Amino acid sequence: MACLELGDRVLVLDSGLSFPGDDMPGIDLVLPDYQYLRDRAGRIDGVVLTHGHEDHVGALPYLLRELRLDIYATRLTLGLLQPKLEEHRVTEQATLHEVTPGTEVRIGAFTARFMRVSHSIPDGVAVAVDTPAGVLLHTGDFKLDPTPIDGRVTDLQAIGEEAKRGVHVLLSDSTNAEESGTILSERTVGPSLFDIFRDAPRLIVTACFSSHIHRIQQICDTARAVGRNVAFLGRSIKNSVGQARELGYIDIPESDIVDVDQLSDLDPSKVVVVSTGSQGEPMSALSLMAAHEHKWVTLQAGDVVVLSSSVIPGNEASIHRTIDGLYRTGADVYHAGIAHVHVSGHAAADELKLILNLVRPRWFIPVHGELRHLAHHARLAREVGIPAERILVCEDGDVVEIGEELRVTERVQAGMILVDGLGIGDVGEVVLRDRRKLADDGVVVVVVSADAHTGEVLAGPDIISKGFIHDETSAEILEEARERTLASLRELASEEVGDPSILKKHIRRTMGRYLFEVTKRKPMIIPVIMEV
Amino acid sequence: MACLELGDRVLVLDSGLSFPGDDMPGIDLVLPDYQYLRDRAGRIDGVVLTHGHEDHVGALPYLLRELRLDIYATRLTLGLLQPKLEEHRVTEQATLHEVTPGTEVRIGAFTARFMRVSHSIPDGVAVAVDTPAGVLLHTGDFKLDPTPIDGRVTDLQAIGEEAKRGVHVLLSDSTNAEESGTILSERTVGPSLFDIFRDAPRLIVTACFSSHIHRIQQICDTARAVGRNVAFLGRSIKNSVGQARELGYIDIPESDIVDVDQLSDLDPSKVVVVSTGSQGEPMSALSLMAAHEHKWVTLQAGDVVVLSSSVIPGNEASIHRTIDGLYRTGADVYHAGIAHVHVSGHAAADELKLILNLVRPRWFIPVHGELRHLAHHARLAREVGIPAERILVCEDGDVVEIGEELRVTERVQAGMILVDGLGIGDVGEVVLRDRRKLADDGVVVVVVSADAHTGEVLAGPDIISKGFIHDETSAEILEEARERTLASLRELASEEVGDPSILKKHIRRTMGRYLFEVTKRKPMIIPVIMEV
Repeated sequence: MACLELGDRVLVLDSGLSFPGDDMPGIDLVLPDYQYLRDRAGRIDGVVLTHGHEDHVGALPYLLRELRLDIYATRLTLGLLQPKLEEHRVTEQATLHEVTPGTEVRIGAFTARFMRVSHSIPDGVAVAVDTPAGVLLHTGDFKLDPTPIDGRVTDLQAIGEEAKRGVHVLLSDSTNAEESGTILSERTVGPSLFDIFRDAPRLIVTACFSSHIHRIQQICDTARAVGRNVAFLGRSIKNSVGQARELGYIDIPESDIVDVDQLSDLDPSKVVVVSTGSQGEPMSALSLMAAHEHKWVTLQAGDVVVLSSSVIPGNEASIHRTIDGLYRTGADVYHAGIAHVHVSGHAAADELKLILNLVRPRWFIPVHGELRHLAHHARLAREVGIPAERILVCEDGDVVEIGEELRVTERVQAGMILVDGLGIGDVGEVVLRDRRKLADDGVVVVVVSADAHTGEVLAGPDIISKGFIHDETSAEILEEARERTLASLRELASEEVGDPSILKKHIRRTMGRYLFEVTKRKPMIIPVIMEV
Repeated sequence: MACLELGDRVLVLDSGLSFPGDDMPGIDLVLPDYQYLRDRAGRIDGVVLTHGHEDHVGALPYLLRELRLDIYATRLTLGLLQPKLEEHRVTEQATLHEVTPGTEVRIGAFTARFMRVSHSIPDGVAVAVDTPAGVLLHTGDFKLDPTPIDGRVTDLQAIGEEAKRGVHVLLSDSTNAEESGTILSERTVGPSLFDIFRDAPRLIVTACFSSHIHRIQQICDTARAVGRNVAFLGRSIKNSVGQARELGYIDIPESDIVDVDQLSDLDPSKVVVVSTGSQGEPMSALSLMAAHEHKWVTLQAGDVVVLSSSVIPGNEASIHRTIDGLYRTGADVYHAGIAHVHVSGHAAADELKLILNLVRPRWFIPVHGELRHLAHHARLAREVGIPAERILVCEDGDVVEIGEELRVTERVQAGMILVDGLGIGDVGEVVLRDRRKLADDGVVVVVVSADAHTGEVLAGPDIISKGFIHDETSAEILEEARERTLASLRELASEEVGDPSILKKHIRRTMGRYLFEVTKRKPMIIPVIMEV
């Protein structure tokens, strides 16, 4: 999410979410903290969406709970957004404006021009916005596929026109800055799929991102080429294929499609299943197949599974577990690590340099990606001659003042809002720290009943542990811990006994020390004093 | 770990450990379950170690706690093992036998021949063992570096001789089976380091595996070439360099070495720090530098950090966090993703095929790696003409009977023993499941004091939550949960109240349902009944 301010008006570029890292147990989604926009409610002229991926539009339904907004995006981007707004019941809050690549649109105080880019979802755009100092050009997510499936190449001519006009500041996609060279065309994946499909003796299962319309198109085309029907598996893939078909972004004859729940009645050598779960998500169709627990698909020797997808950082372990499980069923497995069944949607180093050379911006801000991607994109920019002092590597929350010179003037609140179940923002660093501690060494609950007046211990300490140590081995240790705690409680002075907080601190210390001594573990110790 | 049995005698090949996955919170190490060996105590003729990496020798100190064993390994492998045996106080349990590559050794009932292989640690060997059906050849970890730093190439001639003798079964390293082509020589890393070192204006910090003696040699040689001294940082790197110097496996003049604690007194442009922490381990030197918390090294703009290492699967997130942190200090960072600062120690697909073609084994068992690596190695073997029915993809615990034919006859107990702190094997699946549950949604402790005779609730329920929900938002929810629980307890029949297990079940259900209803989370609920 980027916010442009002109006078007191605000234009928002994208509003994405991210997924939790391994240091955020139990978290479902990570939203940007939009306090900045909340503070500017009523002054927001619009939100421009560059394309329909979750990391660019996913936070919008949450933002719309609080703010009424005008949304500007291309046809497919809006088409994919609409069901999400309905699901979140925020349709009323949004006014949707369809924009056409190649046109200029007036959005309140802002003038924006949209340029076609190719990416791993159709209908993506870059956007140029006029500022008093000159043009600000934001590439969105893009690559320079020379032969995209829909024939719609990144509009270098329009980008060149902005360059001619004079781009004051370029913001460009850094996701693949660390990849050298260029990304092969999406079209090169088709022939690889064909080689695999042609030789497959039985069922073929493919997995890819549900929004990767062009990949799905190629899978379906290849299926037809080898005389197979396709069966879509998973709600998200059915939804996005449905939307794309309705809006004319994908072309699959109705007669090619079979219902996945009829799979057992069909000749497996005549079907390609197009499934979700390419990231090894725990309850996804593919993971269930890998565990031999899927309702309709039971894999066996002779079946072929193709993961036509990348490994999103953070998902390595679950994807590898899934691949191992798929092999274990006897199926033959192909993935991007061993076969040309996927290409990235993001421009690699040489394409990024081409854009930098074409645009020759006065100032450059690498965007999208972790800090290492931004830093390396900055290195690429220096290599093509952008002076180091005209490159700003920014982090979330940095406010950049755009004048003749660019400078970071302040950092505003722009952290992460964690979504866990129904809660939005009710899990913060303290809760996460507790969860990580609980995960590492478990919990030991120590309960003591004490006389409310005298503080005398009436019953306990009772000790319950979870996730700490195996029950059989723990009995002895916990009994010893119990006795030590009881003995040390008896040694407390009478004025200490009367104060539950002192009692608790004492239990935590005595217990913690002993347990660490015998196990070298530090479970979370929860002392409970029941005053009766 | 592989065990060979001949009559009633046993020969063990390697005894490694692994590191916990993200589904094993709090676990330090994962040992193989050596019940099989325990059952054969007294019949074990020896343990052959192919090289000194932890995943091949790390479990040995634990095994030696229970069994006296004869260990056969090359000089450096024994040299690196010895301090570990001392640390675990099991030196007395082991009789060490140094073996020389290129020789045949009689180990009880077994005849073994050792062949030099190149790998990412010096002094590795492959081993051939005679069986009544013919030779069994185990490659160990290897690659075919044509120009290794120590000049000791993989002994293809000796392997060829075994092939001529007729290899009945080949076991070969599958770690890099998914990598196409071949692995570049270790020697190619030096010039890349030189390019980076030469241009670095200030301090250089490098990180690599402590046992990668040849990499450390190249770093030190390159440092000397650009007129810098070296400072070793981290206990493990100091230990292994010390051992390697003493045994003549590394050549660093004493005059090149400076003490890292004197760093602040030295000209940073005259020093290369050789550090541990290349996997982003939380408390490692490199992570502390990335967090600006290291005692002796404070990075700043102009400093250069080189991660001369691979990304071990499972460590992606921590390595990426570390790299981002390093960039944030202002330092320039190089890693294997963007510069040629690392090569793998394991043969890639074409090298594996070369070995298969050279050996032409009657039977083939791919070893080392996850199932997907074994399965892909099997695919490579089929590609070079090994019949599919003569390839056995085995998993831990499979017992392969080696006769004229090979077949898996049974599966024995060979799971994982988890080490957590001082405990070995006291954390099993139940404890891990609890830890994962605690990590996901935290814990809610519900304490009730009840009259021991009547079961009447005397005090409580008191509710304490950790890792569940932010304290401020939780007060209301927990108060409501408390009231609902109390109300529902009052509705219980008197005979139910008297039974603590019924009470607990009731609390767990009432509380769990309500909390899920309002938060869609399922914290672990621990009911405690204090009978007073």
